[in-house]
Amino acid sequence: MIESEVKLFNRPKMEKPLLIEGLPGIGYVGKLAAEHLIEEFEAEKFGEINSPFFPHHVSIDSGILSPAKNEFYLVELEGKDVIILVGDVQATSSEGHYELANKVLDTAESFDVSRIFTLGGYATGQYSKSQPKVFGVVNHPKLLEEYGSDGLVIREGTGPIIGISGLLLGLGSLRSIRGVCLLGETHGMLVDHRSARSVLEALSSMLDFKVDLSKLEEHAKKTESILRRMRKVEKLRKRRKEREEEVSYIG
Amino acid sequence: MIESEVKLFNRPKMEKPLLIEGLPGIGYVGKLAAEHLIEEFEAEKFGEINSPFFPHHVSIDSGILSPAKNEFYLVELEGKDVIILVGDVQATSSEGHYELANKVLDTAESFDVSRIFTLGGYATGQYSKSQPKVFGVVNHPKLLEEYGSDGLVIREGTGPIIGISGLLLGLGSLRSIRGVCLLGETHGMLVDHRSARSVLEALSSMLDFKVDLSKLEEHAKKTESILRRMRKVEKLRKRRKEREEEVSYIG
Amino acid sequence: MIESEVKLFNRPKMEKPLLIEGLPGIGYVGKLAAEHLIEEFEAEKFGEINSPFFPHHVSIDSGILSPAKNEFYLVELEGKDVIILVGDVQATSSEGHYELANKVLDTAESFDVSRIFTLGGYATGQYSKSQPKVFGVVNHPKLLEEYGSDGLVIREGTGPIIGISGLLLGLGSLRSIRGVCLLGETHGMLVDHRSARSVLEALSSMLDFKVDLSKLEEHAKKTESILRRMRKVEKLRKRRKEREEEVSYIG
Amino acid sequence: MIESEVKLFNRPKMEKPLLIEGLPGIGYVGKLAAEHLIEEFEAEKFGEINSPFFPHHVSIDSGILSPAKNEFYLVELEGKDVIILVGDVQATSSEGHYELANKVLDTAESFDVSRIFTLGGYATGQYSKSQPKVFGVVNHPKLLEEYGSDGLVIREGTGPIIGISGLLLGLGSLRSIRGVCLLGETHGMLVDHRSARSVLEALSSMLDFKVDLSKLEEHAKKTESILRRMRKVEKLRKRRKEREEEVSYIG
Repeated sequence: MIESEVKLFNRPKMEKPLLIEGLPGIGYVGKLAAEHLIEEFEAEKFGEINSPFFPHHVSIDSGILSPAKNEFYLVELEGKDVIILVGDVQATSSEGHYELANKVLDTAESFDVSRIFTLGGYATGQYSKSQPKVFGVVNHPKLLEEYGSDGLVIREGTGPIIGISGLLLGLGSLRSIRGVCLLGETHGMLVDHRSARSVLEALSSMLDFKVDLSKLEEHAKKTESILRRMRKVEKLRKRRKEREEEVSYIG
Repeated sequence: MIESEVKLFNRPKMEKPLLIEGLPGIGYVGKLAAEHLIEEFEAEKFGEINSPFFPHHVSIDSGILSPAKNEFYLVELEGKDVIILVGDVQATSSEGHYELANKVLDTAESFDVSRIFTLGGYATGQYSKSQPKVFGVVNHPKLLEEYGSDGLVIREGTGPIIGISGLLLGLGSLRSIRGVCLLGETHGMLVDHRSARSVLEALSSMLDFKVDLSKLEEHAKKTESILRRMRKVEKLRKRRKEREEEVSYIG
Repeated sequence: MIESEVKLFNRPKMEKPLLIEGLPGIGYVGKLAAEHLIEEFEAEKFGEINSPFFPHHVSIDSGILSPAKNEFYLVELEGKDVIILVGDVQATSSEGHYELANKVLDTAESFDVSRIFTLGGYATGQYSKSQPKVFGVVNHPKLLEEYGSDGLVIREGTGPIIGISGLLLGLGSLRSIRGVCLLGETHGMLVDHRSARSVLEALSSMLDFKVDLSKLEEHAKKTESILRRMRKVEKLRKRRKEREEEVSYIG
Repeated sequence: MIESEVKLFNRPKMEKPLLIEGLPGIGYVGKLAAEHLIEEFEAEKFGEINSPFFPHHVSIDSGILSPAKNEFYLVELEGKDVIILVGDVQATSSEGHYELANKVLDTAESFDVSRIFTLGGYATGQYSKSQPKVFGVVNHPKLLEEYGSDGLVIREGTGPIIGISGLLLGLGSLRSIRGVCLLGETHGMLVDHRSARSVLEALSSMLDFKVDLSKLEEHAKKTESILRRMRKVEKLRKRRKEREEEVSYIG
């Protein structure tokens, strides 16, 4: 059977880079955060992953289709080399998730990655208009000490983390690659730029870099204005319905 | 594990052929269109594909069973060599879809295929009695220019294309094989010869060949007359039921 | 990944044997028929198949568990060597079905099997108390001529045959092994010894051997007496309920 | 594709050890029993299994995540070397179950394991407050004689055993490794320490070792007190509701 394939267009020089992962998941939090970094810092793409474990579809943009893929970007954050992994899909099966996470870790090891940060959302069923909290989990006790002072918030009673954000760190620990998973609180059914902003704030504090988050905030405000309008329409609809019922009672 | 297998009965000589794919999908549009070409131009079968990813059943015709398969035909359209891929099934899993699409592309490359046309349907929930529209998507921006004058209609906001029609072009782009996907508007729950006719009109205009579409039109008219009869029967049934209810009220 | 494995305890000498398959399926018709042959003719087991595509369970009989498996038996019917394939499971996925069917065909070819007969049920939703009909499908047109005079009944408009009974013949045809599938009419939700009897009658007529079918008939009668009792109980339950309702109306 | 991997941190010396399996299943009976042995006898971990067939998630404990895994422990029970297999997951597919069971058996064979005991629950839909019964099944008739005097209870009409507890013994029998599966009666929807206690009583009687079961009994009592409180709250809720309805009738 064919395997997932990592294709590197070139092998950029990097020194003990970090790996940041932001693939689609709950609230698209990780993907939005990682893509924001790519845009803000004009990261350069240097590789991609194709896999028979991705969904068997292609996406279309302005009449042009492209296969499902994950992509590697390179950026420098305050002098540190950082590989960013983004994409439009995750695997469709357990075996696929394990194979892909291992291929990413193979690539990470080949570049001597020193630490992994995976970004994602934590579904609460509620949309936060102010500042979504960010929880952290690590794959080695030492990291709790190291990042504790950066405000890494541990949440007790968390369920398992599903998908690549968890697997990269879980399987990473088997290869002695340490890392942190940052999960922004989010509704779960809404694309959440504000939670992505919170996650990037936590990340930038831990990694000591600055990033302009205003675009994420703008997007969040747009989402909120759409939500407000939808709620208003819903209220009007309800009130009209109630009035109609009154009329029919009177009649 | 066993793999999908392409079996070529012979290797016909062709020069930079085109590949046209029409496997079963929405409204059977692609399959009907591709099979119409095979019939009209008396294409010759030169190979087939068997796969453990096909459904685990066999089909029966007049007491004779045959295994699920995809088939390669060869035809000459206005001097151009054209491979046509048809069949009665698609794969049953993501991995299967990827393996099969890659095997087809391997075969295409071995014949130096210069361009791929995949044919399919686009579900709208409505049956068009006149002229179903045909949308196009390409796997390289250059093709938008090239075919723009042939009336290639781009539709914005299209969802992903699922199955081999999309994958052949998506994975084809990774091998630098360019291609176009033509999607005929169709109801989605009906076998739609008229949409297949529209798709072939678009294709023949792009590829500059002539094809008699009267058989597809006949089939479409039959389908419509069946639909009309079904609607009439349904109306009569309703009216009778209403009358019965009146009678029972009177009684 | 591990594969399905055929284990032959010994390689009995046979001359151009037939292969009869009767694995669990609709109404257990094929399994009952094949097991009846094994019992009546005291066939000898000479091999078995283990597979990771079988369900992940073990069956238990009188406190002793055994793994899911398919089994090869050998019997002589009127001087003809006959391999019988029986078992308690079929594969759980398309890939598994294809792998297993191909392993069986590998074994069949290694013994130079000349013809395959697969036995199964055809669900009609009705239980026949007299003589269930048996339909036949073949994997080569020549067989329609050959067996036509033995009363091979072709049924038009049959849907696809699902599972190993179809696949063995479908994939067999790709290896030029000819064969017949015999499907006994059956309810579909009941274990049907009578349909198995019909199938064996058709088979024995085609292969010119005699077999005592009285045990199957006995079983069928038991099933019918159970069904009768169940229907009686149901009638009584209904009548009692109606009387109770009458009483409560009166009261 | 990647495979399940057994990693042994060291190869402890053992003489014809037993293998006891207790992975998560019905009522968590097997897992609770096996983990109790590990705690009581301070077993030492000497290996673990990672697998792409495990669920694609990681579990979290106090902010630290770890990958899904199965673990091998070693303990001495009354002079006998005993390997204990525990973990937090089982495979997610049939193929995965078969691969994992075979990997465990490979490891067992490499240590010359003389007998396997698999522990699990048997769902009855009822919670037993006194002494849940324990049923046994074996993979070789000789074991019925051998353990009959130890009170091995056979239950007729048992359905198939699903998962690794059955497969280890089923596939073990193909390698001539004999073993016993002990199933404690349990509700099925509750974590059942009392059933685990019963299973360990049966096991200790068969293997002639002593084990303090008071911790399991304590846990069972806690579960029961929680259940009692839940039932009381439910009763109160019902009574209050009834009274409210009375009031509204009076009003």
